[in-house]
Amino acid sequence: MNIPKSITICEVGLRDGLQNEKTMLQTADKIELAKMIIDSGIKVIELGSFVSPKAVPVMADTAEIFRTLGEIPGVELRAFTPNKRGVETAISCGCKKAKLNVSASRAHNIANLNKTPEESVAGFKEAVDLALENGITVSGSISMPFGSPWEHAIPLDDVRRIIDAYLAVGVDEISLSDASGMAVPGQVNMIAATVQKEYPNVSWWLHAHNTRGTAIANIIAAMDAGFTHFDASFAGLGGCPFVPNAAGNVATEDVVHMFTEMGVDTGIDLDKVIATAKRARELVGHDSDSYILRAGASKDLNLPLPEKKVK
Amino acid sequence: MNIPKSITICEVGLRDGLQNEKTMLQTADKIELAKMIIDSGIKVIELGSFVSPKAVPVMADTAEIFRTLGEIPGVELRAFTPNKRGVETAISCGCKKAKLNVSASRAHNIANLNKTPEESVAGFKEAVDLALENGITVSGSISMPFGSPWEHAIPLDDVRRIIDAYLAVGVDEISLSDASGMAVPGQVNMIAATVQKEYPNVSWWLHAHNTRGTAIANIIAAMDAGFTHFDASFAGLGGCPFVPNAAGNVATEDVVHMFTEMGVDTGIDLDKVIATAKRARELVGHDSDSYILRAGASKDLNLPLPEKKVK
Repeated sequence: MNIPKSITICEVGLRDGLQNEKTMLQTADKIELAKMIIDSGIKVIELGSFVSPKAVPVMADTAEIFRTLGEIPGVELRAFTPNKRGVETAISCGCKKAKLNVSASRAHNIANLNKTPEESVAGFKEAVDLALENGITVSGSISMPFGSPWEHAIPLDDVRRIIDAYLAVGVDEISLSDASGMAVPGQVNMIAATVQKEYPNVSWWLHAHNTRGTAIANIIAAMDAGFTHFDASFAGLGGCPFVPNAAGNVATEDVVHMFTEMGVDTGIDLDKVIATAKRARELVGHDSDSYILRAGASKDLNLPLPEKKVK
Repeated sequence: MNIPKSITICEVGLRDGLQNEKTMLQTADKIELAKMIIDSGIKVIELGSFVSPKAVPVMADTAEIFRTLGEIPGVELRAFTPNKRGVETAISCGCKKAKLNVSASRAHNIANLNKTPEESVAGFKEAVDLALENGITVSGSISMPFGSPWEHAIPLDDVRRIIDAYLAVGVDEISLSDASGMAVPGQVNMIAATVQKEYPNVSWWLHAHNTRGTAIANIIAAMDAGFTHFDASFAGLGGCPFVPNAAGNVATEDVVHMFTEMGVDTGIDLDKVIATAKRARELVGHDSDSYILRAGASKDLNLPLPEKKVK
């Protein structure tokens, strides 16, 4: 098993986590969480989305959050930015990292948008150009490359076509997102190894959902293949778009705990990550799928030995 | 990543799962579950314990369950058997596989029993001899070789001493049990690879608890190192002796689902395993930590595509 010296976590709770919540957090609460995340040592944070406030009201304050936080040296604050209008908002509020997304499901993309996934990516060109001209770097996500609820298996050649399309529009940071929670470790290991070999100049991320319990194993499988960049969400907030009440994104504190116990440098303070997750859970007002919030960190186990019996 | 053609699951729900429950199941219910487990294709099943009925009342009917089921060709029915008296009960009811256990925590074993772990194992000799003379094979478990709540880190040399002690009394099937839920994948991979290399004639098992969310990743890490035998518990029943309300054993249906999706032969019918887990959950009368019972199997996702839009 290949174990890297260090890994990088992107905290996606403020976007992917909160987007799934019924309770809409106050902007001040989101800013409090963002500051806690930054203080914990996390260097990549997805703050929100530049999408229609009518379609996704919970993300309507994303630009305000960017303006309030300003630039933070050494920290990448990113936003989901689906189109050129989103990039314009990013420019206006000082966001320096935009994230695009396309579904790897040809059937769904064609039925929904009348375009193949690679045609959708080609259509991002104007948005990407505008971003790059304005000093905004761009990351592209591929949703469901490990399986979709429509076709189930996604041919690897379909994924390759999307990667090629991203590279053609100038995006060389790509995230594989298991939004349907169908990925299993053997497959993740094979795909992660393949794309790294075939596209050595791409920066790869894995976005793992724990819908069917395999998120942490999928992270380990991707790590073994050489991936070192992983999304995670505080308290495990989030969900699965296809399964009501399913578990959400893998919990940041569970991932940080595991890597810390493995001796892999995350640059992140576990206690502070746990405090952030507790605060996030308090703000959304319900329990969530986090093992470490439930069991505590291994390092904090401190049991007394039984009194010594005499033979 | 090394992926085997097939793996073997031992269903421990009737022992490790039910032992942690407040509701005591009727013997008839346990027999119903055992028959469902057998019918699902699981070939190794831990039916209960031969321990003092006063100390563990929920296991008092283990011998009766063995007698009712009788011998089933191709299926190994085992019981936790802590001592010679337990082996005598095993002989009396037709149990053909006994499981011993020792803690890898020297500090705890000495404080609790005034013996080192290897002295405890040496003390099993009479029980093992009696078992072997009566055609009962014996498996030895090492509890907490990945970390204990007292010392935290367990030196690998301490684990080696226990393995040597088991071999010395004639036990060559050994299970590494993460009862404290402290194991992480890098460590599991290293220890699994080491013990297999140093003790090539031992049959190795991993007993994973999901206390801190790493059980499935630990199974994958052990698999990568060559392990192919894994314990699991229906519906994820069980718990952690050191953390009240923590998640329990890894859920059988989650493990079978993952391996099935990975193309690894388990010999087990996933739908029947899910049915067993649902029935177990119904009998204990509460929800449990099972991803597949919550989200459903990937293969059963069958969403309609959106109606095709015209450009």
